Amino acid sequence: MAVSGLRSRARAIVASGWFQAAIVGAILLNSVTLGLETYEDGPLAHAGPLLDAAEVVFIAVFTVELLIKGVAQGRAFFRDPWNWFDVVVVGVAVVPASTGFGVLRMLRILRILRLVSVLPQMRTIVSALFHAVPGMGTVIGLLLIVVYTAAVLGERLFHDIDPEHFGDLGATLYSMFMLLTMEDWPDVAQTAMDRQPLAWVFFVGYIVVTAFILLNLVIGVIVTALEQEVNAHRWQEDQELELAQHDAVMTQLRALTAQVAVLTEQVRELGAPGAAAAEGPAGAAEVVRPDAEAVAAQDVGPGAAGEPRRGE
Amino acid sequence: MAVSGLRSRARAIVASGWFQAAIVGAILLNSVTLGLETYEDGPLAHAGPLLDAAEVVFIAVFTVELLIKGVAQGRAFFRDPWNWFDVVVVGVAVVPASTGFGVLRMLRILRILRLVSVLPQMRTIVSALFHAVPGMGTVIGLLLIVVYTAAVLGERLFHDIDPEHFGDLGATLYSMFMLLTMEDWPDVAQTAMDRQPLAWVFFVGYIVVTAFILLNLVIGVIVTALEQEVNAHRWQEDQELELAQHDAVMTQLRALTAQVAVLTEQVRELGAPGAAAAEGPAGAAEVVRPDAEAVAAQDVGPGAAGEPRRGE
Amino acid sequence: MAVSGLRSRARAIVASGWFQAAIVGAILLNSVTLGLETYEDGPLAHAGPLLDAAEVVFIAVFTVELLIKGVAQGRAFFRDPWNWFDVVVVGVAVVPASTGFGVLRMLRILRILRLVSVLPQMRTIVSALFHAVPGMGTVIGLLLIVVYTAAVLGERLFHDIDPEHFGDLGATLYSMFMLLTMEDWPDVAQTAMDRQPLAWVFFVGYIVVTAFILLNLVIGVIVTALEQEVNAHRWQEDQELELAQHDAVMTQLRALTAQVAVLTEQVRELGAPGAAAAEGPAGAAEVVRPDAEAVAAQDVGPGAAGEPRRGE
Amino acid sequence: MAVSGLRSRARAIVASGWFQAAIVGAILLNSVTLGLETYEDGPLAHAGPLLDAAEVVFIAVFTVELLIKGVAQGRAFFRDPWNWFDVVVVGVAVVPASTGFGVLRMLRILRILRLVSVLPQMRTIVSALFHAVPGMGTVIGLLLIVVYTAAVLGERLFHDIDPEHFGDLGATLYSMFMLLTMEDWPDVAQTAMDRQPLAWVFFVGYIVVTAFILLNLVIGVIVTALEQEVNAHRWQEDQELELAQHDAVMTQLRALTAQVAVLTEQVRELGAPGAAAAEGPAGAAEVVRPDAEAVAAQDVGPGAAGEPRRGE
Repeated sequence: MAVSGLRSRARAIVASGWFQAAIVGAILLNSVTLGLETYEDGPLAHAGPLLDAAEVVFIAVFTVELLIKGVAQGRAFFRDPWNWFDVVVVGVAVVPASTGFGVLRMLRILRILRLVSVLPQMRTIVSALFHAVPGMGTVIGLLLIVVYTAAVLGERLFHDIDPEHFGDLGATLYSMFMLLTMEDWPDVAQTAMDRQPLAWVFFVGYIVVTAFILLNLVIGVIVTALEQEVNAHRWQEDQELELAQHDAVMTQLRALTAQVAVLTEQVRELGAPGAAAAEGPAGAAEVVRPDAEAVAAQDVGPGAAGEPRRGE
Repeated sequence: MAVSGLRSRARAIVASGWFQAAIVGAILLNSVTLGLETYEDGPLAHAGPLLDAAEVVFIAVFTVELLIKGVAQGRAFFRDPWNWFDVVVVGVAVVPASTGFGVLRMLRILRILRLVSVLPQMRTIVSALFHAVPGMGTVIGLLLIVVYTAAVLGERLFHDIDPEHFGDLGATLYSMFMLLTMEDWPDVAQTAMDRQPLAWVFFVGYIVVTAFILLNLVIGVIVTALEQEVNAHRWQEDQELELAQHDAVMTQLRALTAQVAVLTEQVRELGAPGAAAAEGPAGAAEVVRPDAEAVAAQDVGPGAAGEPRRGE
Repeated sequence: MAVSGLRSRARAIVASGWFQAAIVGAILLNSVTLGLETYEDGPLAHAGPLLDAAEVVFIAVFTVELLIKGVAQGRAFFRDPWNWFDVVVVGVAVVPASTGFGVLRMLRILRILRLVSVLPQMRTIVSALFHAVPGMGTVIGLLLIVVYTAAVLGERLFHDIDPEHFGDLGATLYSMFMLLTMEDWPDVAQTAMDRQPLAWVFFVGYIVVTAFILLNLVIGVIVTALEQEVNAHRWQEDQELELAQHDAVMTQLRALTAQVAVLTEQVRELGAPGAAAAEGPAGAAEVVRPDAEAVAAQDVGPGAAGEPRRGE
Repeated sequence: MAVSGLRSRARAIVASGWFQAAIVGAILLNSVTLGLETYEDGPLAHAGPLLDAAEVVFIAVFTVELLIKGVAQGRAFFRDPWNWFDVVVVGVAVVPASTGFGVLRMLRILRILRLVSVLPQMRTIVSALFHAVPGMGTVIGLLLIVVYTAAVLGERLFHDIDPEHFGDLGATLYSMFMLLTMEDWPDVAQTAMDRQPLAWVFFVGYIVVTAFILLNLVIGVIVTALEQEVNAHRWQEDQELELAQHDAVMTQLRALTAQVAVLTEQVRELGAPGAAAAEGPAGAAEVVRPDAEAVAAQDVGPGAAGEPRRGE
C-alpha cells in the first residue's frame, strides 16, 4: 500500500509541468557550467571550487530526478533505452577521477545530450533515426563495401609510393573517408599520380561512385526518412484528406445503392403485391449488401416476382 | 479633416506604381554609390565629394519616403517589423561619424537590403524563412546541442594537444563549425591524431552525424519549406485540381441521388396515389439530404406507402 | 517555283536521319580535333597542317549545313536563337587571326556545344533552364543582394586588415564567392579574425545564410525544375493515370445518371400514359444533360406528370 | 538422366539457405584476410603463409560455389552479367603472379564486391543504377560536353600562364574535375587570375554552371531513381492504395449500374407484361454491359416497350 502510494505520488510529480521544466532548466544550466569548466585553466581559474560545487548539486538533482522516475515507472523504467542512457551519463560522474577510469568521466559531458532524452520532440527525431537505419542497411552496407574494397585496392596500389596516405589499411581507410568528404582530395591523389600517371582513374572513379552517388543516396534516404518524421503531421493531413474524400464518395455511393435497392423493392411490390410480405426480409438483405452478388440475386428476384404478374 | 486629407493623399502616393518604381530605383542607385565608396581610397579618390553629396540626397529621399509611408499607414506603420528595419537602416546614417558610434554607420550599408523589404515577392520568401524557423526549432536545436556537446568534449580531449584549434570553448566551437562545413577538417584533425591515434573516432563520428546527417536535415527542412513558398502557386494548382475532381464526382453523385429520390417519390405515388399530396414535402426533404439517414427513412417510408396499395 | 523547289528539297534533307547523324558525327569529330590541337605545341607538333586542313573541312561542312537549314526554314531560321548560336560559333572561325580579333577565334571552341543545339533532348533541358530562370528571379535576386551587401560590408570592415581578400569591392566579391562555395573559407577568415576577434560573426553568419540556406534554395529550385523536365514523361504518366481514373468514374457516373433519367421517364409514362408522347423530347434532353439542373427540372416534371394520375 | 539428376541436386543446394549463408560468410572472411594481407610487410609478417593458405581455401570454395551454380543454371549461367563478374574476379586469382599479368591479380580484391552480387537486395540497387544510367544519358552527356568544352577553352586560354594546371588537355580535364568538386578551386584559379584579371569569369561561370547546377542535376536524377528503388515497397503501397480506392469506387458504381439496369427491366415489365419474356435476354445483356451504349439501347428500348402500353 505504501509502495503504491509512493509510486502514484512519483507519477504525479513526473507528469507535472514544473518537474519537466525544472529538469530542462537544470540540464541547460549544467551545460553552461560544463562549458565554463573549459576556462578553468585560464580566466576562470578562481571559479573552480564554485563549479565543483555546482557539479555536486547537478549530480544530486539528476540522481533525485532519476530516482523519482524509477519509482514512478517501476520495472518499466529499465525497458526504455533512453533511461539507460540517462542512468549511465549521470552515474559515470560518481566514478572517482583517481581510479584510472578518469577517461570515463569525460562521458559526463554527454549529460548535455540529456536535453534530447528529456524533450519528447527531440526523442522522436533521434528514435526515427535509429528506427530508419536498419531499413537502410542495404544502401549503407553498399557504401561501406565499396569504401572497404577501394581501401584494400588503394593500399595495394599506392602502398610504396605514398606511405603517408596508403601506408596500411587503417591509414588508407582514413584517406578514403577524406576522399568521401572530398576534402583535400587533390593532395591525397597528388603523390600517387606523380608516380603512376593512371592513378587518376582510381581517384576520379572513387569520388564519382562514392562521394557523388552512394553518399548522396545514403544521405538522401536518411534525410528523407527524418524529414517525413519532422513533417509527419503535414503528411498525415494530406493522407487523411485523401482518405476523407474517398470515404465521402463511398458513403454517398453506398447510400445511393441502398436507395436504389429500396426503390427496386418498391417496384417489385408494385408488380406483385401479394409476394411483397414474404420477400420483405430478402429485400432488407439487399439493402445491407448492395454489391454484385445482391444484384445477381435481384436479377433472379424480379423474374420470379414478374411471373405471377404476367400470369394475371 | 486636414490630417485625414493628408493621409488619403499619402496613401494615393504610396499605392502609385511610380512611387514604388522610384524607390526601387533609388535603392539600386544607392547600392551602386555604396559600392563605389569602397574605391574612395584608390581610383575614385577625387569622387569623394560627389559620393558624399549622393549620400545626402539618398538619405533625404528615403526619409521622405518613410515619412509618406508613415503618414499613409498611421500607427499601423510601427506594427510592421519591415518598417522598423527600414527606419533603423535609414536613421543610422544620420548618426555623426565623430560621436564614437561610427561603427554603427556601417549599418547604413544594410540599406541595400531594403530592396528585399520594398519588393513584395522577396519579402514573402524572407517572411517564409522567419515563419518556418520556429517550426524547425527541434531539428535546429538538435544540431546545436550536438555541436555544443562535441565542442565541450573536444576541448576536454584535445585541449593540451592542439591549443590552436581546441584552446578554449570559443576556439573549439569555431573548429566545430569548420568541421560542420567539412572545410580543412583534415588539418584540424591532424595534430590531435598525431598524439592520440584514436582521435579519428571523434572527428569521423562528428562529421558523419552533423555534417552528413543533421546539417542536411536542417537544410533540407528549411529549403523544402522555402521551395514550397516559391512554388506555392503550382502546389495550389495541384491541390485545387484534385479538389475540383473530387467536387465534380460528389456533385454528380448528389445530383444522381436527388434524381433517384425523385424517382422513388414517383414510384410511391404510382403505388399510393392518394398519399402523394400529403407526403410531397417529405419527398423534397429527401432530395435535400440524400444520405444514409434519408435512405433509412425511405426504407420505412415506402413500406408505409406500399401498405395501402397492398390493401387495395 | 525554283526557290520553292529548292526549299522543299532542303527540307527533305534536313528531315532525313542521315543528315542529323552526319552533323552529330561531324561535331564529335571536330570536338576531337579541337582537343588534339591543344597538343600541337608538344607531341602532335607535326600534325599541325593536318589539323588545319580538318578545320577547313569542318568549317565548310558546318557552313553548308547552316545554308541548307537556312534555305529550308527561310526567314524562320533567324527567329530561333539556337540558330543564331550556330551561326556565331561557326562564323567566328572565319575571322582572320591577324585582325586583332584573334581572341574571338577562341569562340570557335564553342562549336563543341553545338552538340546541344543539334540534339533535341539536350536542347529541351537547356531551354528548360533558360525558361525556368526568370521565374526564379526572386530567389536568385535575393542571393545576389545578400552577397553584394556582404561584400560592401566586408570591404568596409576588413579593408585595412586584409587587403588581399578585402582590398576593393571586386576582390571582396570574389572572396564572397569563395565563401559561398565554402572553399578555403578558414583561410579567408583567418587574417580578419586575428585582428578583429568578433569577425567570426560575419563569416559564420554569411556562410549559414548564403552557403547553407540561400544557395541550396536556388540550386534546389533550379534542379527541381530541370528534374521535372528530365522526368517529364513519368510525371505526365502519373498525371494522365489520375486523369484517366477520374474520367472513368465520371463516365460511369454519367452513364448511370442517364440510365436513371430513362428509368424516370419510363416510370412517368407508367403513371401518365397519354403525356408520354408529348414529353418524349424533354426526356431525351435530360439524358444529354444529366446534371443538377436536369434533376431540378425532373423535380418539377414528375409532379406535373403525376398530377393527371392523381386526377384519374 | 544422370546430368538432369546432378542439375536438380545442384539446384537444391543453390536454393538452400545454408549455401547462401555459407557463401556470404566466406566472402566476409575473405574480405578480412584480404585486409590483413595489407599488414604483411609490417606487424603480420609472420602470418604470410597462413594468409596464403587461406587464399587457396577461399579460391577453392568460390570455384566450387560457381561450379555448383553453373551446373544448376546450365547455359543460363552465362546469360547473367553478375555471374560473369563472379567468374572473372574468382578466376583472376589463378593467374600466376610471375606471368607479367601480376597487376591483374589486383582484381582479386574485387572479390569483396561479390557481397553485392550474392545479396539480392544489393544487386537490386546496383542493377537499378545501371538501368537508370541510359535514361540519364542526356543530363550526363550535357555535363560531359560542358566539361570537355571548358577544358579545351581553358587549355587555350591559360596554357602558357599556368602549365601545371592547364599544360595539356589531360591536365586541364583533371583541373576541370577539381573545379567540379570545388576542391582547391581558388588555388587552380589563382595563377591564371594573377596574369589575366578577367579569368575569374571563366572559373566562376564554370563553377556556377557545372558544380552548382549540372552536377546537382545529374546527382539529383540518379539519386531520385535509386531512392525510388530503395523505397520501392512504400511507393508501391501508395500506388496500390490509390488503385484499390479507385477500384472500390468503380466496383460500387458498376454494381449500382447493374442494379439500376435490373430495376429498369422490372419497370418495363410493369409497363408491358407480355413483352417481358421476349426481351429478357436483352435485359440480361444490359446488366453485363452497363455503359453508355447500353443506356442508349435502353433509351430506345423503353420507347418500344412503352408503345404497346400507350396503345392499350
